[in-house]
Amino acid sequence: MAYEFKIVQEVEFHHTDMAGIMHYSNFFKFMEAAEHAFFRSLGLSIHTVKPEPLGWPRVHADCDFSYPLRFEDSVEVRLLVREKREKSLVYSFYFRKINGEPQREVARGTLAVACVKRDNVSGKLTAVAIPKAIADKIEAAPPEAFGA
Amino acid sequence: MAYEFKIVQEVEFHHTDMAGIMHYSNFFKFMEAAEHAFFRSLGLSIHTVKPEPLGWPRVHADCDFSYPLRFEDSVEVRLLVREKREKSLVYSFYFRKINGEPQREVARGTLAVACVKRDNVSGKLTAVAIPKAIADKIEAAPPEAFGA
Amino acid sequence: MAYEFKIVQEVEFHHTDMAGIMHYSNFFKFMEAAEHAFFRSLGLSIHTVKPEPLGWPRVHADCDFSYPLRFEDSVEVRLLVREKREKSLVYSFYFRKINGEPQREVARGTLAVACVKRDNVSGKLTAVAIPKAIADKIEAAPPEAFGA
Amino acid sequence: MAYEFKIVQEVEFHHTDMAGIMHYSNFFKFMEAAEHAFFRSLGLSIHTVKPEPLGWPRVHADCDFSYPLRFEDSVEVRLLVREKREKSLVYSFYFRKINGEPQREVARGTLAVACVKRDNVSGKLTAVAIPKAIADKIEAAPPEAFGA
Repeated sequence: MAYEFKIVQEVEFHHTDMAGIMHYSNFFKFMEAAEHAFFRSLGLSIHTVKPEPLGWPRVHADCDFSYPLRFEDSVEVRLLVREKREKSLVYSFYFRKINGEPQREVARGTLAVACVKRDNVSGKLTAVAIPKAIADKIEAAPPEAFGA
Repeated sequence: MAYEFKIVQEVEFHHTDMAGIMHYSNFFKFMEAAEHAFFRSLGLSIHTVKPEPLGWPRVHADCDFSYPLRFEDSVEVRLLVREKREKSLVYSFYFRKINGEPQREVARGTLAVACVKRDNVSGKLTAVAIPKAIADKIEAAPPEAFGA
Repeated sequence: MAYEFKIVQEVEFHHTDMAGIMHYSNFFKFMEAAEHAFFRSLGLSIHTVKPEPLGWPRVHADCDFSYPLRFEDSVEVRLLVREKREKSLVYSFYFRKINGEPQREVARGTLAVACVKRDNVSGKLTAVAIPKAIADKIEAAPPEAFGA
Repeated sequence: MAYEFKIVQEVEFHHTDMAGIMHYSNFFKFMEAAEHAFFRSLGLSIHTVKPEPLGWPRVHADCDFSYPLRFEDSVEVRLLVREKREKSLVYSFYFRKINGEPQREVARGTLAVACVKRDNVSGKLTAVAIPKAIADKIEAAPPEAFGA
């Protein structure tokens, strides 16, 4: 069972805005990229058609920004599973700028996501219990993992 | 039958990049917004599930940029139907900055789109003839429409 | 002095994702669009070069999602000033789907933004007191405004 | 002197749209990512403040799409310098899906970019000759490079 994953994302030109820093909406895209890579690392996909049309819409997202990211920065996005519930998961994210000196934390975020079944025709989403094949691979991180 | 449509788009902060101008990828989003509004103006939608799962993937896109757009600029996007074929449409777009003086053309673009049927389960796309209910509402613009 | 503003945003095709709903990162873009339109409604701009190079980087953002938005939905974004501090502002946002029946709240969010001075050459950002010309036009909403 | 570069990009969830495929605007972001990585591979940056505030706005972009990309696809983006002029560069791009079987070309594109000097205060852009330090590192690809 896994509770942690890290990816590195590069700040591309199109991520920046006229203030010369990464637009804050991209932190939310990076969180999601880490979540999806975490699933792939477990042999899973966040969006399946077979055996079931499952998805994981977001029910809550937040981010605190402490330092700006700029073009050509590299940022490590560390995911920790904060909570595992019957029909949802909550993740914590720690963003760390890893190019240049000093390396530093630049943001922290949270995503709460619900497991849903999609109707392929109507598109309707219905909350369902996390399938055993997924739930068996994911666990909440122990308190000490949030320490650093 | 219609061959022309205009919308106005506002340049938002998130459209800009660190060069202080609108990132060029957004011109392609604005073209598409004009195309979709054109369809809505005819009582149509670019993406349908019923009576058929139809879509319009892009097969070609181009844009020539002559003047930068900046935050809080307003841009008129004028769509003209350049070609109407059995299974595809070609649009021309003219971007005109309409705030400040002088008003000026800032870009010109093209989209070629194919009519496809989507398989709801596999997601596979198959080119099909434009349904009569759509084809009957759209015509190619006369040469003089491209004049200005 | 003002504490409230509303805009309407349309859900464009490029806002959607493969789950068939608006990607959640766009809620954050819509919040910002409301904030910037609020500033414009007061004769201000969120990003100035003269008389001073001022900007408003985000220090916190959150959003709770209760109902998905889909292509061609119209959403009213209502901004309320929740807090006015010496160097920062906190906004609340209420998203309401206004096409179709029933109209319904679909999300609620928060943005906390800091007033900063930008160095035009280095790009460095320094927190500063909100200039009087801006502070005089904005006030915190009364508690009853958050009622509905 | 260099005329070719390759990067690999992953198709993230936020790149997809409700048609279940990568939204076409992202091909233009991927072209740019390849261009900027090409510059970095030469010890250069596409956006400099010192010794000069240089930038490279796009003057033309096009793309032909032959096959859709989907979530979790990997795409190789191959850049070739097609033309080197006094004040501008033209690049060709070849997109190749490299996961799954068969690997296949999915799109081809072009970017023409102009070298400009930015005024840090007004933001005005003025076309200038490509500085020698940059021009000395880049050359047009030989005709046979476009062969495959």
